[in-house]
Amino acid sequence: MNDRQPASPAAMRSRQNRGASKAAAGRVWCSRAAGGHVATVWLSHPGRLNALSAGMWKALADVFNEIAADELLRAVVVRGEGGAFASGADITEFAELHSSRDQVRRYHDEILGEGLRAVMNCPVPVIAAIDGPCVGGGLEIATACDLRIASRRSSFGVPIGRIGFPIAPLEAACVLELVGRANALELLLEGRIWPSEEAYAKGLINRLVDDEDWERELEATLQRVCSCAPHASRRSKWILRQLSGIDDRQKLSMGQRESCWDFADTSDYAKGLDAFLTKTRPQFKND
Amino acid sequence: MNDRQPASPAAMRSRQNRGASKAAAGRVWCSRAAGGHVATVWLSHPGRLNALSAGMWKALADVFNEIAADELLRAVVVRGEGGAFASGADITEFAELHSSRDQVRRYHDEILGEGLRAVMNCPVPVIAAIDGPCVGGGLEIATACDLRIASRRSSFGVPIGRIGFPIAPLEAACVLELVGRANALELLLEGRIWPSEEAYAKGLINRLVDDEDWERELEATLQRVCSCAPHASRRSKWILRQLSGIDDRQKLSMGQRESCWDFADTSDYAKGLDAFLTKTRPQFKND
Amino acid sequence: MNDRQPASPAAMRSRQNRGASKAAAGRVWCSRAAGGHVATVWLSHPGRLNALSAGMWKALADVFNEIAADELLRAVVVRGEGGAFASGADITEFAELHSSRDQVRRYHDEILGEGLRAVMNCPVPVIAAIDGPCVGGGLEIATACDLRIASRRSSFGVPIGRIGFPIAPLEAACVLELVGRANALELLLEGRIWPSEEAYAKGLINRLVDDEDWERELEATLQRVCSCAPHASRRSKWILRQLSGIDDRQKLSMGQRESCWDFADTSDYAKGLDAFLTKTRPQFKND
Repeated sequence: MNDRQPASPAAMRSRQNRGASKAAAGRVWCSRAAGGHVATVWLSHPGRLNALSAGMWKALADVFNEIAADELLRAVVVRGEGGAFASGADITEFAELHSSRDQVRRYHDEILGEGLRAVMNCPVPVIAAIDGPCVGGGLEIATACDLRIASRRSSFGVPIGRIGFPIAPLEAACVLELVGRANALELLLEGRIWPSEEAYAKGLINRLVDDEDWERELEATLQRVCSCAPHASRRSKWILRQLSGIDDRQKLSMGQRESCWDFADTSDYAKGLDAFLTKTRPQFKND
Repeated sequence: MNDRQPASPAAMRSRQNRGASKAAAGRVWCSRAAGGHVATVWLSHPGRLNALSAGMWKALADVFNEIAADELLRAVVVRGEGGAFASGADITEFAELHSSRDQVRRYHDEILGEGLRAVMNCPVPVIAAIDGPCVGGGLEIATACDLRIASRRSSFGVPIGRIGFPIAPLEAACVLELVGRANALELLLEGRIWPSEEAYAKGLINRLVDDEDWERELEATLQRVCSCAPHASRRSKWILRQLSGIDDRQKLSMGQRESCWDFADTSDYAKGLDAFLTKTRPQFKND
Repeated sequence: MNDRQPASPAAMRSRQNRGASKAAAGRVWCSRAAGGHVATVWLSHPGRLNALSAGMWKALADVFNEIAADELLRAVVVRGEGGAFASGADITEFAELHSSRDQVRRYHDEILGEGLRAVMNCPVPVIAAIDGPCVGGGLEIATACDLRIASRRSSFGVPIGRIGFPIAPLEAACVLELVGRANALELLLEGRIWPSEEAYAKGLINRLVDDEDWERELEATLQRVCSCAPHASRRSKWILRQLSGIDDRQKLSMGQRESCWDFADTSDYAKGLDAFLTKTRPQFKND
């Protein structure tokens, strides 16, 4: 079902539109299968484990906003190309896009946030098909999906504290709702990468599949999802979102929200970013 | 403790009252043990894996409302007769009771809803003793209990999307609170039946017991529950309900609530119901 | 990192101040390591499995309030001395401090409550290092921490119903948020002690470590925590607390809050307390 051809005209268009200018910084594009019932959204940044550039976040929002209105659609798969889901935000862009307070606010609220919200707001079931590293922003995309089917070789983490920045509100809400506060704290305060077995035990993924069976299990899951009545699935998804309180929980005061960007003014963040890019070990001083 | 005799006079009465007219559509009745400290509520629909008819939902509400005022009571067990907990709502009644918008609203809010609420509102510890299929409305009853002790041969699911209808708000709130949104989505969007090991891993049951030890473990659990001070147990149960937010979370607008019954106007639901009753495979068209 | 010397001057002072008068009823004191980056808070009540006396709860609050303002601090460890985390409140004090309605209100809201709140409000990552029994008030301290690293020989429970009293609101909120309502009910209604494997499966601890590896794993965890930028960790911890809703959830009416102390007026509580102290089995009558 989730083979890559034939792509829909819309997907072809969006591939052509964005392919040229953004190729160097990765692409997100959409293919269709199962007679148009299933869309597969591909995260692709070759040689970078699909690190999510600003262009990819925007394309993710565009692709999801485009398919959201499609009444034919019954399921969406989000997956990475070439042995990774996504290794996180593309940090090589951070000097330019994620340094000053205004930049980081815009990056998390608009660039990344619009991508995540588009995934969350998709009215049909969205399955994160995870095979390989699923880290940082990649993990956040996975939490915004409805189901997470992962191969055993997958791995999971949000080690942003090691680069020197905290989790932003929307992203925190996604991780928090999926795994609870204790596990969210563990991911963030320790910055450790979890093996897939631990991710399953802690509720971060719905299903853990042996590597060689993963593609088949994804297919079987899609068949099960597509054999439910589309209206029933959309409505069940909607009512669970309403009752979950995830949207209410994010109501922060202006001051609270603004304090989430304080890190941009710390020396430690500049130091952490520099250390990440130069592959050295930062010596944080709490300044 | 949970042997079936001697039944209390109230239970005997309720058995006689309802036994005659509802026998064909299943029965719910109550027996007493442990000197009146323990009530066992039996779900019984022979040959139908205890499929829950409208009469059984009403009897469930009646039985629980009757025992709620009993100051002697220390624990309630809910269990099925004959190798099943309950296989779901009795779909054979759906053409008559669960077709039009008015019918489905009444079925979920009043018939099923009053049964579930009576279980949830029971002031003493309620244990779902699960041995066999625990599906749909049966699973929802289990989620409304305080503890779930299941045998290994038990199985769990809410495959209502395959019949063409979504989960109703109260039922969604029960499942959501117990297993979280990701697992609730998995149950509903995939419609897969979970083996007991998976139900345990995902928090749907408190305890997984080998088939041959299950009855003994249930007894031991009851003894532990009954050796706590009744006032302490009632108050602990009450404060956890207050703090859980489950009651607040269901505050939907009239329009939101009404949209939960839209499925009654879809062709897919008519098709799904017909397919279920004729044991064929529905071809949903999203209409 | 968490070796006991060299203690900070503040810790030395607080040790001297409280050591003399409270020695018989246990002590809580603080040592520093890792150049002042790591504080270890010790629960110590020799021969009593670190049962938490009123003096220890107050010292816990004092120690945490003292270190809360320390900008140098990057992590706090809470651990017990001598083969236990903490076996619960010191019940031998209950006749004097936890009998009348006014006493129990004060005990839970002020004595125990101020201790728990001080742990919860600590701005830096707090790790409960659990090796041995972690029961009642001890378990509640562990739930107020951010991470819980436990050895395999550890055990967990809240068997207060067997002594005849229910869980108080703040304590209920801590347990509820960590393990969810079903598991909180199981701990309270059954009063069973969980082995560490079950505690891990149910999300009560983050990590389960073989006894001989536990000290090393604690050290490795601290190193990981200390290699994240302090500001990032503090802010991530803070935003997850804001979004968790744990503080809103405790908003009870005066009447609801007051009803939590009704147990002080029951004969069963007097009976349960007496039975605990005389090591007999209480016969609760629901009076």
